Amino acid sequence: MEEIIYYIGVIGSFALAISGALVGMNKKLDPFGVIIVAFVTAVGGGTLRDTLLEGRDVFWIADPSYIYFILGGAFFAMIFQDKLDRFRTSLLLFDTIGLALFSVAGVQIGLSFDLPYIICVILGVITGAFGGVSRDILVNEIPVVFQKEIYATISIIGSILYIILYHFECSRLINQMIPIASIIVLRTFVVYKEVTLPSIYKNDEVVDEEEW
Amino acid sequence: MEEIIYYIGVIGSFALAISGALVGMNKKLDPFGVIIVAFVTAVGGGTLRDTLLEGRDVFWIADPSYIYFILGGAFFAMIFQDKLDRFRTSLLLFDTIGLALFSVAGVQIGLSFDLPYIICVILGVITGAFGGVSRDILVNEIPVVFQKEIYATISIIGSILYIILYHFECSRLINQMIPIASIIVLRTFVVYKEVTLPSIYKNDEVVDEEEW
Amino acid sequence: MEEIIYYIGVIGSFALAISGALVGMNKKLDPFGVIIVAFVTAVGGGTLRDTLLEGRDVFWIADPSYIYFILGGAFFAMIFQDKLDRFRTSLLLFDTIGLALFSVAGVQIGLSFDLPYIICVILGVITGAFGGVSRDILVNEIPVVFQKEIYATISIIGSILYIILYHFECSRLINQMIPIASIIVLRTFVVYKEVTLPSIYKNDEVVDEEEW
Repeated sequence: MEEIIYYIGVIGSFALAISGALVGMNKKLDPFGVIIVAFVTAVGGGTLRDTLLEGRDVFWIADPSYIYFILGGAFFAMIFQDKLDRFRTSLLLFDTIGLALFSVAGVQIGLSFDLPYIICVILGVITGAFGGVSRDILVNEIPVVFQKEIYATISIIGSILYIILYHFECSRLINQMIPIASIIVLRTFVVYKEVTLPSIYKNDEVVDEEEW
Repeated sequence: MEEIIYYIGVIGSFALAISGALVGMNKKLDPFGVIIVAFVTAVGGGTLRDTLLEGRDVFWIADPSYIYFILGGAFFAMIFQDKLDRFRTSLLLFDTIGLALFSVAGVQIGLSFDLPYIICVILGVITGAFGGVSRDILVNEIPVVFQKEIYATISIIGSILYIILYHFECSRLINQMIPIASIIVLRTFVVYKEVTLPSIYKNDEVVDEEEW
Repeated sequence: MEEIIYYIGVIGSFALAISGALVGMNKKLDPFGVIIVAFVTAVGGGTLRDTLLEGRDVFWIADPSYIYFILGGAFFAMIFQDKLDRFRTSLLLFDTIGLALFSVAGVQIGLSFDLPYIICVILGVITGAFGGVSRDILVNEIPVVFQKEIYATISIIGSILYIILYHFECSRLINQMIPIASIIVLRTFVVYKEVTLPSIYKNDEVVDEEEW
């Protein structure tokens, strides 16, 4: 299990580093700034997860090989910026791959600690979505996670799907592939169709907008 | 002591989850977004405290029952949004209860680790106020904690009061109730009377506003 | 080594507390607000470093004497605000001293944990720069770290310099003084000459600015 988590983590880091580097370049940061945003985007979620889990080393300190994949992703984005210049589509692609792989990795690590299912789902969402939140906070954007494209919601759905398949003892491959594929398909669908969750607001004027 | 901290924590989580859900609904987030903001508001302060204390498990991972109270608070706010629609007053109420209970819980946990008084006060402020700070950062509001209603200041005062009563070996009940009541009364008073601390600025033009 | 790290940390805390207090006063916060921003600026970087390192206590909890130096820095800034009223220059001075001392302290702590060089450099940057990032997030400014004055870049250069000198087994004093002096000189030079890194953008219109 550790080995599969490792490969998922490495590919997810590479994808999220590209996503972070694209946002950094979109903000016209200098090369080191681009690398830092790439790094934070790639490790933010997993780092928060590992500091929450007593007795677990932070993954990129325990195994620095992640850092080279992240640097690779950042340089890839900088070198191929012309090819990736349809910013929105590239960002969506790499961000979604990272979201899918990291959500699954987070749930798996929770299960390997024998934590209750609900905690595993939360760890999946943290691992998948918090890197993007950190990225948006760093570049002072409104975190997209809560406002558009129901980003976190899709991570929750994928994580719950993983738990259900795990509970019914599916084979390892199916248990990983179905949630990963579901997250990628769902997010792509949601972004292109501009799907939103059903509103819980009966009347848009009901809630008092007064600031405090 | 552990048991009392537990009940204080559970009620505080419920109150802060309502406070977070109200802010999330005010921002028109989707239901999962509302739940996530409620969760972050409720656990943010205690989670930071627990990651700072070597050898202490994060409270909601060690005891997932908190999560059900938080979900309860979020659903309560969503179901009764019409009843809670005087947004500012409801938010103030639940936020203040959470601030009071969590500040006291933070100081108590510091004391149970035999930490110096000044560290216990800091842990009280972190536990009480950081959930609200996380909430405001997530929804990209200016954290109210430093700018209005002297939020953090009241948490500091309540935490110091707890330490003084503790030092003079008051009974447990008095030691808890007086700081909790003081925080609630003080904050309500401050908000309605629009009290501010005495200014430390001799002249509003003295400080150079130049950005850097 | 521990003792030297301690003195570097104490002086760095004092300097960063002044830097944080200046920003807090520039935002017209109340006295407690100024103290809190000073505290967060001074401990933010080292606290993140210590929570990342399994088995290392958070420095200001393990040794509360730091807190008194931070309070000292905050009161110093409040008392001498008239003398420090050329805001930008004072802020730059104390911020740069803190950046230099904390970057070196972070690298040293990484080396004392026998971590790979690349991790030590990252810990140096986190320790040096994250306090300022936290400060800017708290007061809802765009973190300067990625946008102006190549703040983080200078911390990276100083940290790498430390590692090179360490690798070639320079004397302790040289190993510390050269990176500290280099960071201070470089940052001052960069700010006054408005140096920026060479652009990686071939054409300012290439990157699609479309938001997502």
